[in-house]
This record gives sequence, C-alpha cells and structure tokens, in this order.
Amino acid sequence: MKLSQIGERKAIKEISKILSDVDLTDDCARVTMDDRYLLVSTDLISEKTHMPKVMRPWQIGWFITAINLSDVAAKGGMPIGVLLALGLPRDLDENFLKGIIKGAKDCADKYNTEILGGDTKESEKITIAGTAFGIVSKKNYMPRLGIKPDDLIAVTGTLGKAALGYQILKNNVKGMEKFIKYLLEPKPRVKEGIALGKTLAVNASMDISDGLSSSLYQLSEINEVGFEIYEKNLPIHPGIYTLKKKFPDLDEISLATNFGGEYELLLAIKPGKIDVVEKTLKKLRCKLTVIGKAIGGKKIYLVSNGKRKKMENKGYEHFKTVLDKI
Amino acid sequence: MKLSQIGERKAIKEISKILSDVDLTDDCARVTMDDRYLLVSTDLISEKTHMPKVMRPWQIGWFITAINLSDVAAKGGMPIGVLLALGLPRDLDENFLKGIIKGAKDCADKYNTEILGGDTKESEKITIAGTAFGIVSKKNYMPRLGIKPDDLIAVTGTLGKAALGYQILKNNVKGMEKFIKYLLEPKPRVKEGIALGKTLAVNASMDISDGLSSSLYQLSEINEVGFEIYEKNLPIHPGIYTLKKKFPDLDEISLATNFGGEYELLLAIKPGKIDVVEKTLKKLRCKLTVIGKAIGGKKIYLVSNGKRKKMENKGYEHFKTVLDKI
Repeated sequence: MKLSQIGERKAIKEISKILSDVDLTDDCARVTMDDRYLLVSTDLISEKTHMPKVMRPWQIGWFITAINLSDVAAKGGMPIGVLLALGLPRDLDENFLKGIIKGAKDCADKYNTEILGGDTKESEKITIAGTAFGIVSKKNYMPRLGIKPDDLIAVTGTLGKAALGYQILKNNVKGMEKFIKYLLEPKPRVKEGIALGKTLAVNASMDISDGLSSSLYQLSEINEVGFEIYEKNLPIHPGIYTLKKKFPDLDEISLATNFGGEYELLLAIKPGKIDVVEKTLKKLRCKLTVIGKAIGGKKIYLVSNGKRKKMENKGYEHFKTVLDKI
Repeated sequence: MKLSQIGERKAIKEISKILSDVDLTDDCARVTMDDRYLLVSTDLISEKTHMPKVMRPWQIGWFITAINLSDVAAKGGMPIGVLLALGLPRDLDENFLKGIIKGAKDCADKYNTEILGGDTKESEKITIAGTAFGIVSKKNYMPRLGIKPDDLIAVTGTLGKAALGYQILKNNVKGMEKFIKYLLEPKPRVKEGIALGKTLAVNASMDISDGLSSSLYQLSEINEVGFEIYEKNLPIHPGIYTLKKKFPDLDEISLATNFGGEYELLLAIKPGKIDVVEKTLKKLRCKLTVIGKAIGGKKIYLVSNGKRKKMENKGYEHFKTVLDKI
C-alpha cells in the first residue's frame, strides 16, 4: 500500500509496531534525567507541502522554530535549544539561507532559547527539520494520557487563526492581509505551557497543530474517554466573522475545528482547579476558554443549540490530504 | 551569490555571523546540565545526494541513525536517543517506510540506545533528518578545540573504506560487493568514544565524515596549529590494494585521505598518554594508528619518503561538490 492510501496515522501505527517499546502517542518524546524529563521534538517542513510561495525566508525560519517549540511548550517544558537541519538546493541564493537563519534566531530569542547548531546539506527541494529540546520537572510534566471523565476541556487563545490566514491568502482578500501572519508566523505558547505545568491542575495537554477535532480524536483514542464540546463556547477569532461577510458560505465552525496549523494549547483540567488555571493564564494575558468536558465512552459530540451531534474528525492528515497550492 | 558558488564552509560562516553567540565549529552541539553536557547533533540526508539507488530502505534507516550517533560518539558521549524526521513522497510504499524504521531501530539497538520518536511529513523527495542525543560528564568531553603542538594525531580503524565501497559500486566490480556495506552501513565508534573520553588523554576528537584531509583542515583552523602526517603510517584498508590490482590508476592515498563518509575518529592525543589510549582501545578490539603530530604554524604536510608536501584539502563539501550519481 502506498502512504497516500494508508495516511499518516496508520503509518505511525505501523512504525509503533516496529518500535514496540516506544511511546509514539505524543509529538514530544521524553527521556528521564533524574527528577526531570528531557523533552525532544522534531518537525520537518518541505517546499511543496508547507511553504506557500509568499512565505519569506525569515518566516520559514520562524515557522520551523516555532512549531517545534510548541511541542515542548505543550508538555510544560522550558526550551533549552533548537537544532536546524537544512536541505537546500545548490542554486539557492545565500540571502535566502541567511533569511531562514535570522527568522529562526529571532523566534528562539523571542522565546528565551537559542539555535544551538545544525546541519546544511544539498537537496533538490528546500526541506528543513527542526528539533527542539526542553526540560521539565517530572511533577510539572503535562502528558497526553491522564484525562478523566468530567475534566474540563479548554483552549488557550482563539480558534481559526491559521484557517483565516489561509483563506485570505488563497482568495487574495484585500484589506485583511495582516491576518496572513497567523498562518505563516505562529506563536507557540511557551511561557503559558511552563506556567500551566506548575499549576499541577492539568491532566493532559497538547497543541492543536493538527486542528481541534483531530486533536480531540487523538486524545480520545489514548485516554479511552469521549468529549462533549459546546459550539457556542468556541472562541472563534473575530476575523473569521469579518471574512464571512465577504464569503457568506464560509463554515466558521469547521474553520475553527478542522483546520490545522493552530498552535494553541488544548487542555484537560481537573474540575476543581479551573480557577488556578484561569488566574495563571490571566497573569500572562492569555485567554482561556472552557469549550467542553470529558465524558465516559469514546464518542466526541459537538453540542449545538442543545443538540448533540457527532463531531467530525477532519483535521489535517499528511499523505492523505494535500493543502491546495497557494 | 548562490550556495553552489560559496560552498558549505562559507555558508556556515555566514550562519555563524547571524548566530553570533553560538559555537558552530563542532557538528555536535552541547548544552550544560549541571556537571554534564547534553550533546545534540542533527544530520539530514536526501534522496538525490545521499542515497544511491542500490541503497535498501533498511540501510537508509541504519545510515541516518549511525551518522548522528557518530557525532555524539566523537565527543565521548553516551547516546540516550535518536529522533527521526521523515519527509516522504505520497506514492512511497509503506514497506519502504517500515524498512527505514527497522534499519534505524537495529542501529539504535546495536549501540544501546533507542529511537525516541519523530515526525512523518509529505515531501516530494525522500528526505530524512536524524537527531541524536547523548550525555557526557564535562571532564570526559572531547572537544575539537584543545590541540597543542606535539600532540599525537591518530585515527581509529582503517581509512578508505567508504571510498572503497563507492568505487566498487560505481565501477560495478564483481567479487568485491561485500565492501559496499562500508559505504552504506557505517559503524559509529560509540563505545570507543565513551572509553576515549574517560582516558582524559584526548585533547581533541572528531569523526572524519568529511574525509581525513578536510577534517585536519577544520581542526587546523580552529586550533591554530598545523599537522605533519606520515603517508606510510596511514592505515589504508587492504581492500583498496586489492582494488588497485584491477584499477592500477587508483590513487590509494587520495582515497584514504580525501573521501568522505568515513566514520572513524580522528584524535589529538597528549604525547605522554598514548599508552593508555592504545590500551583502552585494544580492550575494545579497536585498532589505533598514530598517523602524525600537531606542529606550530597552520600548514598541513603529508610526509612521503622523507619529503614534506602540502596536504590538499579535498574533502567532500556540500553544494560545491556533487557525488557522481551511482
């Protein structure tokens, strides 16, 4: 079978069978070091599938650094460094490379960490792998496994930002160009992740880089729980409604739940501890919205006007889906 | 300027200017963790430039794991894990992916470490970035900087193995196919590196993945020393001489000194400490050969029949050189 027939999730399951003693359920791996975990995460982006033509080199460098830091942040980790492995074509201009490095450095600086080094190699197409490292005390580590029924499900920030940027770029919407940076310059929740880990109130955490619905399905599978998500609670970015005025057919719920490239945190919070979490994030001026709760069983419902319907699992999956070429 | 015009070394210098506070002189970066260093190294390989058509998926997985472990080994580090970021085409067969993972796992198992996780993404061409992590006590860390004149320069194992495999593959030499695995299945000196670090006798260490001459030039630049290398001491692999019988024009010295893909360690050893190093490696059944010494100035000489001549700096450099397509 070709990878396009089996899709990324199945491919990862096949990999899991071979690496039988390794937990691949989290994008961020961990290694025990005394009373701490070393967190390690790697992400790869390539020219055709992840870099719209309008993406500047600086943005490419920012992007690969940010998405890797996001995986460390979701575990409550303090980043300690980032490595970049760059596959670059021979005929690329050196200023393009410099732009990538500058973007990566600016992102690392912004989140109090550094680019430690890397590798440059020749390749036909631009392909960049980033690896981020972090450290977290075992007690502050936020896993994916640990959700109990009645846990409150919450997200940081707003939903649909990457989808908004994508729609504006794809449809060449004038006057809303400022939102494109949501897609191309994501902001990982680094200080929020560190602070959340310290509250000891979070039973599970992940970023929603694959989209909200896909992330909920991943958590459901690992935790043997279901979710009830309240449509009216979804903190949809106001720009989505502005855009909908121009494109009335836009499905704002789908944009907010099924689109990848979002680097907010999805949290399962102990029911009695929501106050401390809200207070912690408020200090960091980060919005928190309870969007639902964990329930018994493994079904995931979207509750709309008092009616439950099955939430679709439509997040971005590699190999199976290809983003339209922008 | 295009990357092909400036070459990899110059590109790295440009990167260094941007990352002004980062030491890029070693392929393996380090992060201080109390009295230890966390060692991190990343290497990327791509279909066209690093994977001859005969390379099996298992060998690709072994290769990317081995070359990253080699960088950790050269610093005296005990490996603690490897991450793989896989960029794969949609139409790739899932068995190809499984083969890569099996090869990576077998290599990790062989060197007492594990594949911790990774990332799979869609890309036009197969591109794989590996990241290896290791730990070493500060006192056992083997840097690149630290060579003093009169240090003995030595290499583990034999030279020219990758060149031998390459020549046999390129010229389709019958009866010598067993040597091709030297090129495609390198063996990192992991336990040797750990043991060497503990001797406290090594002033500098690196692997010679860029070739011996290129590695000596890199060490010379960092350390402000030169080298005198004795041609007759070079531990050239016997297979090179067997091959030379079929191809009398082969320059065995050039094959042993200018060809990349070699994963032996190049060491600068304190003159009074050679015995302990030899004894340490003997226990591990690893050959050690003193091939020269460090000298004042920054010239690198090859001494042949009592005569000094300048050693050429002809190692593999990305962007500038492209290996013949096999």
